[in-house]
Amino acid sequence: MPGALSIVGLGPGRGELRTGAAERAVREAQVVVGYGPYVDQCADLLGGQRIERGTMGGEEERARAAVELAAAGERVALVSSGDAGIFGMAALALRAAAGVPEDRRPAVEVVPGVTAATATAARIGAPLGDFATVSLSDVLEPWERVEARIAALAPTDLALALYNPRSRTRTWQLGRACEILLEHRAPDTVVALATDVGRDDERIELTTLATIDVERVAMRTLVVVLGPHVERAGPWLVTARGRS
Amino acid sequence: MPGALSIVGLGPGRGELRTGAAERAVREAQVVVGYGPYVDQCADLLGGQRIERGTMGGEEERARAAVELAAAGERVALVSSGDAGIFGMAALALRAAAGVPEDRRPAVEVVPGVTAATATAARIGAPLGDFATVSLSDVLEPWERVEARIAALAPTDLALALYNPRSRTRTWQLGRACEILLEHRAPDTVVALATDVGRDDERIELTTLATIDVERVAMRTLVVVLGPHVERAGPWLVTARGRS
Repeated sequence: MPGALSIVGLGPGRGELRTGAAERAVREAQVVVGYGPYVDQCADLLGGQRIERGTMGGEEERARAAVELAAAGERVALVSSGDAGIFGMAALALRAAAGVPEDRRPAVEVVPGVTAATATAARIGAPLGDFATVSLSDVLEPWERVEARIAALAPTDLALALYNPRSRTRTWQLGRACEILLEHRAPDTVVALATDVGRDDERIELTTLATIDVERVAMRTLVVVLGPHVERAGPWLVTARGRS
Repeated sequence: MPGALSIVGLGPGRGELRTGAAERAVREAQVVVGYGPYVDQCADLLGGQRIERGTMGGEEERARAAVELAAAGERVALVSSGDAGIFGMAALALRAAAGVPEDRRPAVEVVPGVTAATATAARIGAPLGDFATVSLSDVLEPWERVEARIAALAPTDLALALYNPRSRTRTWQLGRACEILLEHRAPDTVVALATDVGRDDERIELTTLATIDVERVAMRTLVVVLGPHVERAGPWLVTARGRS
């Protein structure tokens, strides 16, 4: 009899930013599948569960392994940080699950989480509202498509949360994105570099579009380009429009 | 001595989608301030706290009241649903707090939450990734600005999460937004109408850009216009690109 798969977003960083649904899914799982640091992120929820750690490059295999375990009858939690659907494991895992014949297909739930963009915003004020999330990774799709998104967003007043801004091998993409943005946005546009947001050792630096030091950006950094209507309110940055 | 203000996003709907940080902030508060339905959303966390319910139109007064109570020495939780920074109470409350002289200003934290966009996505698969959130409300800013955002996003391949799509008095904005989108996007573009997402009585309907019935959209509905790269995978809708 098929088991069940929970695709779980653990939220950014520390346990307090997890949802109750995420905690339940991990606690009740028989097997927890995840890249090592994500498994560590929910270490306090682990007891008798079997643990399957993957390697960073192995997202697809990990998704498939989680689905196979669930198809074989296990209750599986596939964990990643943030929200599972925002550049997380959900798309890969659902595609793998769809490939399983219906009579063997496990029950699947996607458990949403707090995504890095809103967690970062909360640390500096309320600078989002109208905003876009864009991944700068060109590993799974051509850079032209990524660049087209940035170019279309540049002349707008939307804030931008740039996920996957940089890796060991992808070093120039963030600089190029900033160049495109600078064709339409002011040099002093505030940019937040949020590394390990939500963790005890989080580091949030404010810089500008013109002076951003891409060497300060790591794989675990979220880059948030604030919109032109953001203003200072005491120690906080907030959008100039209110609730609507 | 000034007290403390927590601006809390309760997540969408049921308690299981709240973070531990949100629950702690409400439990430890001396006063909980919020529009009635949001206070009800955390009823299970209420014991001895004083409750200050507001009316829907009174966001600004509520934000100011919460700040004043905190400035007077109380531990206050100002609650709203979803994420406090995404068309929630954070911007208003932070602006009110900034108006308090520094020696009276309470400590303030913003507690992020799961926003309706990712909760909706989780219910139908993994259709987001690169996406934009846009409020269709023209209560606090001119409609031209809202329309300019939609027009700039229409030719892109970003999914769109349309917040505040409709109210008793704002009845034509969603139809106009769809018209603009149809100039660039296919008539059969999938649109999800998610009403009361995350609650036990949530209602998620799939329709298309050409056939959307705006009468099915309530104030508590999130409208998600999926991107052109979304495809069916078994019973789920997922973005065609994977993790990056």
